[in-house]
Amino acid sequence: MAIITLTTDFGLKDFYVGALKGSIYKELDDIKIVDISHHIEPFNIQQCSYVLENSYKSFPKGTIHIIGIDSESTIENQHIVALIDGHYFITANTGVIGLLTLDKKPTKIVKIAIPNPNKGPFPVKDVFVKVACHIARGGTLEVIGKPFEALKEIKEFSAMVSDNGNKIIGNVIYIDNYGNVVSNIPKHLFDSYRNGRDFELHARNNIIKKIHNRYSDIIDFSIDKASRKGPGDLLALFNSSEYIELAIYKSNLDTVGGASTLLGLDYRDTITINFI
Amino acid sequence: MAIITLTTDFGLKDFYVGALKGSIYKELDDIKIVDISHHIEPFNIQQCSYVLENSYKSFPKGTIHIIGIDSESTIENQHIVALIDGHYFITANTGVIGLLTLDKKPTKIVKIAIPNPNKGPFPVKDVFVKVACHIARGGTLEVIGKPFEALKEIKEFSAMVSDNGNKIIGNVIYIDNYGNVVSNIPKHLFDSYRNGRDFELHARNNIIKKIHNRYSDIIDFSIDKASRKGPGDLLALFNSSEYIELAIYKSNLDTVGGASTLLGLDYRDTITINFI
Amino acid sequence: MAIITLTTDFGLKDFYVGALKGSIYKELDDIKIVDISHHIEPFNIQQCSYVLENSYKSFPKGTIHIIGIDSESTIENQHIVALIDGHYFITANTGVIGLLTLDKKPTKIVKIAIPNPNKGPFPVKDVFVKVACHIARGGTLEVIGKPFEALKEIKEFSAMVSDNGNKIIGNVIYIDNYGNVVSNIPKHLFDSYRNGRDFELHARNNIIKKIHNRYSDIIDFSIDKASRKGPGDLLALFNSSEYIELAIYKSNLDTVGGASTLLGLDYRDTITINFI
Repeated sequence: MAIITLTTDFGLKDFYVGALKGSIYKELDDIKIVDISHHIEPFNIQQCSYVLENSYKSFPKGTIHIIGIDSESTIENQHIVALIDGHYFITANTGVIGLLTLDKKPTKIVKIAIPNPNKGPFPVKDVFVKVACHIARGGTLEVIGKPFEALKEIKEFSAMVSDNGNKIIGNVIYIDNYGNVVSNIPKHLFDSYRNGRDFELHARNNIIKKIHNRYSDIIDFSIDKASRKGPGDLLALFNSSEYIELAIYKSNLDTVGGASTLLGLDYRDTITINFI
Repeated sequence: MAIITLTTDFGLKDFYVGALKGSIYKELDDIKIVDISHHIEPFNIQQCSYVLENSYKSFPKGTIHIIGIDSESTIENQHIVALIDGHYFITANTGVIGLLTLDKKPTKIVKIAIPNPNKGPFPVKDVFVKVACHIARGGTLEVIGKPFEALKEIKEFSAMVSDNGNKIIGNVIYIDNYGNVVSNIPKHLFDSYRNGRDFELHARNNIIKKIHNRYSDIIDFSIDKASRKGPGDLLALFNSSEYIELAIYKSNLDTVGGASTLLGLDYRDTITINFI
Repeated sequence: MAIITLTTDFGLKDFYVGALKGSIYKELDDIKIVDISHHIEPFNIQQCSYVLENSYKSFPKGTIHIIGIDSESTIENQHIVALIDGHYFITANTGVIGLLTLDKKPTKIVKIAIPNPNKGPFPVKDVFVKVACHIARGGTLEVIGKPFEALKEIKEFSAMVSDNGNKIIGNVIYIDNYGNVVSNIPKHLFDSYRNGRDFELHARNNIIKKIHNRYSDIIDFSIDKASRKGPGDLLALFNSSEYIELAIYKSNLDTVGGASTLLGLDYRDTITINFI
């Protein structure tokens, strides 16, 4: 059974997601629909790309991903389908496909040209659903439209190496449900410049000298509970997406706060690593 | 495979929605359950009606819609099933069916009388699920109860035409995830009184002289990006439900604000159109 | 078709839930996935237990429940599977199984020992999904690991009877979407000490002398609407989980407030019943 996923900035309060799912089931009885997130910040393409990049690979090849963000088609925001890494992405040319393909070549991209699409303000339902169901039925991209190459490029900050490989300068690219702060410094970049050296990670006026592989690695279980590190303590780790992340162990944004609020780190703020 | 949708004010934090879905799967293995919304404002029947009206039609005929709002049965709030437009709605007689049938005649309405329902405070699970599964199995409404006619009527403001057809006075009926402000002025009403005339839409101290068909129609792509209208600019459009809606292009309620916060428009506020 | 439920503190904004579902569908095509809640307060084991206790029984026997809270395995937080009441629970030994089995004996508990689990910070995806799919395919617990007995016990306040059976002292254990305040005083405890006597329920400086079976039982329909009790009035009832609950009839936390905000009752606050 084919799978269609949904990633949008629609939120869950309104009728938009329900109408979308109804439209899919109206076309196809035998389909699985999975919500990835409907809480992307409105029109935040970078956030959408981060969420998709880190979830799509968990799905089987052949999965069809509908992206419902800034989806009205204009001469600057064409409707496209991209086949990347065995997955289909149906979206407007907002830059999200540009970001998803920074490190991999798309297999194929076509510009959607279907007859008589509703020209109203809900193209995710009126156009993307039709395209998704076509693909779910085994239809080809050739039928949907002609090859498309003019992918919009939007700026996503990349970590930079400077000072003859002695420094990595990164930025905050995501803050999660726990207030954990994700940087754009990938593990492989850190590893390839470290060369066994000690280092200091600087984030605001905090300095961290160790990067863990799991949150609980901050705890030394040989020490009694009252004395050892634990809830409320700051740590850095390579997260499940293999980026360097700062976290407060067992944080809660609504009560004691998380790394974002306690360290005062926001989207785009700088995180630096000095090898010494 | 039959579809059961859920529209409630339960929220997603508590065990209510999970228990509901478990109860359905306990009765039926071969069923699709779709959340329309669980974030209806508690006991807000008008909001519930707006969300349902604009989503149910996207589902296939025969879909069963459970409405979990103010659902305890009393002598003033009977449990009913309404067959409208080929769709089944299971609900208390809160007024929501009255609103849904303002412009269409229900095919059949019965008052639910099932033996030994649990008389506790969770009838959506104890009664509505049983009725939904009965219908999903192909059961008839006749078995569920006797015909019912005393639909509760609740007031929903309708747009009014005044000044010999030179003025339409409407109200805000919904504010969506983006802060877009939806009025109760339908496109067909606007069109039938306009007669080719110019007009001014007044909302607080804002005046709008054009109504678009899509959000991005505010942009004149022949002008360079820095000079043309775009993010942050106010527009009116006929939304996907064919009501007049006010929006700030690419708004974000959590950061820059949306039409509701920037224009200071709240539920029930007046929106006026003067034809000139 | 087997059912896997998800109860986590992941929230719905990030990629975590989507990645989880993708991973399940990658292993099993023929499976139902049901969200119980992803809005458990981060690391709140008592809240998780309350939500699970009141939802799992609605699902068919054999359902597999994944619990994604504080899930990294350590020497103090082992990965386990518990078979309780015909249901499978896959979790870390956080105390949640200890709470779920306060009043019932688990049929079997094993410590998870699967070969080559990813040792990263997302064991719900890397370990629990594999175990859940093994069980969904009909696999046995014996293959997953050896029997485990060292269940973590965490403190959950129980209602206490004092003053020779003339007083029950309870606490607030949950506050729901409507601001309804749930106590840990079960109906059967209240009933077994009441012996036909009158009583006073004290919550802060409020006194209640009646406990209803449904919210709407507060209304006397023989009185005209303007004079009778209704929206905004305080009541106590035995809720659908058969605990004593305090509610404001038709409350709305975002507008007029609910019992929690209007009575100033928070998690752990005392609720007392004096029989007289």
